[in-house]
Amino acid sequence: MQIKVVSNVLKANEDMAEVNRKLLQAKGIKVLNIISSPGAGKTTILERTIDALKNEIPLAVIEGDLMTSKDAERIEQHGVPVVQINTRGGCHLDANMVNKAMAELPLDEIKLLIIENVGNLVCPSTFDLGEDVKIVVLSVPEGDDKPLKYPTTFKKADVCLLNKIDFLFYSNFNLDSFYKDIESLNDEMQVFAISAWKEEGMEEWYNYLRKLVG
Amino acid sequence: MQIKVVSNVLKANEDMAEVNRKLLQAKGIKVLNIISSPGAGKTTILERTIDALKNEIPLAVIEGDLMTSKDAERIEQHGVPVVQINTRGGCHLDANMVNKAMAELPLDEIKLLIIENVGNLVCPSTFDLGEDVKIVVLSVPEGDDKPLKYPTTFKKADVCLLNKIDFLFYSNFNLDSFYKDIESLNDEMQVFAISAWKEEGMEEWYNYLRKLVG
Repeated sequence: MQIKVVSNVLKANEDMAEVNRKLLQAKGIKVLNIISSPGAGKTTILERTIDALKNEIPLAVIEGDLMTSKDAERIEQHGVPVVQINTRGGCHLDANMVNKAMAELPLDEIKLLIIENVGNLVCPSTFDLGEDVKIVVLSVPEGDDKPLKYPTTFKKADVCLLNKIDFLFYSNFNLDSFYKDIESLNDEMQVFAISAWKEEGMEEWYNYLRKLVG
Repeated sequence: MQIKVVSNVLKANEDMAEVNRKLLQAKGIKVLNIISSPGAGKTTILERTIDALKNEIPLAVIEGDLMTSKDAERIEQHGVPVVQINTRGGCHLDANMVNKAMAELPLDEIKLLIIENVGNLVCPSTFDLGEDVKIVVLSVPEGDDKPLKYPTTFKKADVCLLNKIDFLFYSNFNLDSFYKDIESLNDEMQVFAISAWKEEGMEEWYNYLRKLVG
């Protein structure tokens, strides 16, 4: 019985994700779903990306968090439309939450919608939100063993942002192991090694987004 | 209907957690349930703690991970009994998994059972495993804003290990904010500021465990 309910929940989510996807495609909006552990740097990556691209790509942000509007307040300061979703303890965003948040955004004026999921490397990977690109952020201090330990997210993601590479010198993170494991899990994954805080390696990531939006 | 099923799952878990708790109490074993984001340093903390205490406190470890036995292999090298639970994608341990793992351990020979949960700062906090002490690990690179953003775990935990304090100088982590937020969420929480990797601040933590086991 439990499995049946879970499968119904996932089916309902997929149906709503398709609704989102069709609506966004019809408006010519590309959508990113950004997933990571708490503290991997999703919001800082967004802040840098917005500052770099907002004048050439009109964009908006949906922020997911259990509680607080801290992240939305950070994004708002960068002058783009943002909606905060509080899951009230829920461990991931779902397509229905995103659908409601979309209604609060000026969809006729944007070309890129960035969704920052709840900080969780496990549960968000199972819930399609209607995105074009699923992005996993891994930060160097978390360790190079994480792709094999959390394979679902790394298998499903299209892009990996390896963030906080400025910490490489202070840590025992093994880049060779990391790249080898990524390739074994998902040989089509595009990886960008960056430090959002120190603004290192960001230009290739921006170019990826420029090309995506087209 | 969905809520009812979830509530049944939680009730079944609580019942099994009580079974575990009574069995472990009868044997005079204290139990830790360690929760954190992926990569906060749980396994490294365990490795240091085992090396420091295994000759005075007989102990065993249960390792929880989605996939791989990487963590159990690390623990095994330190010469204590360890059982790996693979949740096959599941986002937390539950009391039933722990009950089965306990059956593989020499419970008549130990005084301390350390359970390392799946790396996830959200879902594990809802599932009692039968532990005496719930411990949350937060690492400095994750940022000082995490207690307010993930309040459930920080409200329920008895102890916080603030790990990777050797990164304080390279990060914008604000210790004052962190302590203020912890106090606002949970003023009975004991906090130990440590670096397991650099073996800083560990002695107070070891003394806490010595006193716990008694």
